[in-house]
Amino acid sequence: MPNISEINNLLPWLLRRENVAHYKDGVVWIGDRRKYPFAREFVRCEDVEEVARAIEEMVTQGGGPWVAASLGMVMAARQVAGKHPDEVRTALAAARTRLVNTRPTNTALARRLDDLMQVALQALAQEESVEQAILNWLETLRDRGYEDYAIRAGYGASLMQDGDGILTMCFAETAFILSLAFAQQQGKRLHVFTPETRPYLQGARLTAPSIHELGIPVTVITDNMPAYVMSQGKIQKYFTAADLITLDGHVVNKIGTFQNAITAHYHGIPYFAFMWGVDSESPNRAAIVIEERDAHEVKRCRGLPTTLDDIPAYYPAFDITPPHLVAGVITRKGVLSPYDLANQFA
Amino acid sequence: MPNISEINNLLPWLLRRENVAHYKDGVVWIGDRRKYPFAREFVRCEDVEEVARAIEEMVTQGGGPWVAASLGMVMAARQVAGKHPDEVRTALAAARTRLVNTRPTNTALARRLDDLMQVALQALAQEESVEQAILNWLETLRDRGYEDYAIRAGYGASLMQDGDGILTMCFAETAFILSLAFAQQQGKRLHVFTPETRPYLQGARLTAPSIHELGIPVTVITDNMPAYVMSQGKIQKYFTAADLITLDGHVVNKIGTFQNAITAHYHGIPYFAFMWGVDSESPNRAAIVIEERDAHEVKRCRGLPTTLDDIPAYYPAFDITPPHLVAGVITRKGVLSPYDLANQFA
Repeated sequence: MPNISEINNLLPWLLRRENVAHYKDGVVWIGDRRKYPFAREFVRCEDVEEVARAIEEMVTQGGGPWVAASLGMVMAARQVAGKHPDEVRTALAAARTRLVNTRPTNTALARRLDDLMQVALQALAQEESVEQAILNWLETLRDRGYEDYAIRAGYGASLMQDGDGILTMCFAETAFILSLAFAQQQGKRLHVFTPETRPYLQGARLTAPSIHELGIPVTVITDNMPAYVMSQGKIQKYFTAADLITLDGHVVNKIGTFQNAITAHYHGIPYFAFMWGVDSESPNRAAIVIEERDAHEVKRCRGLPTTLDDIPAYYPAFDITPPHLVAGVITRKGVLSPYDLANQFA
Repeated sequence: MPNISEINNLLPWLLRRENVAHYKDGVVWIGDRRKYPFAREFVRCEDVEEVARAIEEMVTQGGGPWVAASLGMVMAARQVAGKHPDEVRTALAAARTRLVNTRPTNTALARRLDDLMQVALQALAQEESVEQAILNWLETLRDRGYEDYAIRAGYGASLMQDGDGILTMCFAETAFILSLAFAQQQGKRLHVFTPETRPYLQGARLTAPSIHELGIPVTVITDNMPAYVMSQGKIQKYFTAADLITLDGHVVNKIGTFQNAITAHYHGIPYFAFMWGVDSESPNRAAIVIEERDAHEVKRCRGLPTTLDDIPAYYPAFDITPPHLVAGVITRKGVLSPYDLANQFA
């Protein structure tokens, strides 16, 4: 397996570790995925509220929010360093609550910040630097995260055959992009179709340029085209990330993932979801909270109105794909049946 | 049944006869559906080439192109009025070819212009005004068209029940909008969901404002949301227009219609397509030519880029829904099985 530096060098600009988010001189810098690929800029955040707003305003997404939120906690710790432990605890708890509330669907963010709080409170109890303790925990976790990406990407690449047409949705992040890079290294010729993923266009803006940067053929389509492209025999596999996979095999991911899974199933095309982490507090579909975002966003495309302002709209940000439409869940333990997750991870 | 004037008054602005296209003082005025609903403007065309370009550039769509093309033929006739019959014939044939080539998928346009040519050549042979003969033919056909709309809308309304949530796609035009108006007159409460229909946003720009103008609740969603909205139990019926229905029951319509039909079938939701006309020269799926439009258009939304210019895109403008996903075809003879069309119309 390539080491972490080699992995980082294989990745396109957007996914390189320093470009997701970094901390420098007490300030958090978050790679601005709203402006990419038209500009390569960072949003500067000086406190937790600015980080929370950046997450809410979709400055980052996918694997970005937990890193940004953790760096927000680092800032919170720095800002109360040396204060009375009660004050530090209160400030950290308030920061955690604010940051967790940015993404109600992605419960993994909440679990990560729970772990972070333990590290922070332990450092506090031992009169160590809470700021440094969180930073150390985060860097170790990011290292392990890249190792995880590489393990899962190895399994992802193993599912890709020479000549495959591959559908994805939204921005399936490092595990998927790294799978493509590994498959490419193995000499497999692939062609990826990326639905643009309205309303934020992550497919067109993030996925397509990232794959293009790797030199792998990629074609942008609109979100109403996947079934027709499948019917033409151009798609052999469907891969996405997952914001959450419940222990009973329901995949929660960006809106549109579910309908692509239905149409893939209709065409006999297997659907594979990369598992990011396990949330033992989300045992089944009933435990899922689907985030509804501001419906106004559905009536805008890159800031321009798509219809009249007084017409109602609806914006569920995620959907749920049931396990019978999932051919495999790509985990660090291998490509698992969605019905085997409880056995493996409960 | 309401008369033609009453029908026209029931319709929203966009679908009123005079706002689709009209002819005045030798000039064709086409309602500009690219600018609607942000502006209510007409494109002025002084010759066939300008009409053809307007059709190609999507100034009008649905039931608009054949009217605009016919008015283009009126202009062509006017411009060679009094010339030698051979010259008139040559000019009309050239105009017909140019106009038919604007829409390779919509073979009904070609059939309409074939009929128009017969009328024109007959007038020419009888030394009557070709311009006036085409105009008379067109007005009679438009009258009959509105009667047809009302008949099919009666059947459409009969399929809608009080409390129904209805999904549509793109802009299903007069038969569908009139169905909603009739159902509303019958006291049925409906709620319509309109996918925005990228890349041209006809659902957001044309359908939603038209339904809103009728006072019927309507909600705009993006094209990746229909399956999730269905899974919430919010959709009971799916209705679309059709650019072409083959005699063996394949429905050709705006890209996305097919995947919505698959997901509707998955959820046990019936799909009904309004039949606009019959093309006896399109017996089956093999006879269908799917128009591929300039892929550059997929990378734009209201003129703004959605990705980098050097990334490839793909733009099939239509897709094909097979008969086993079609619950009924709404024709002037009633709601027919897609498997019965050859018996009824061959």
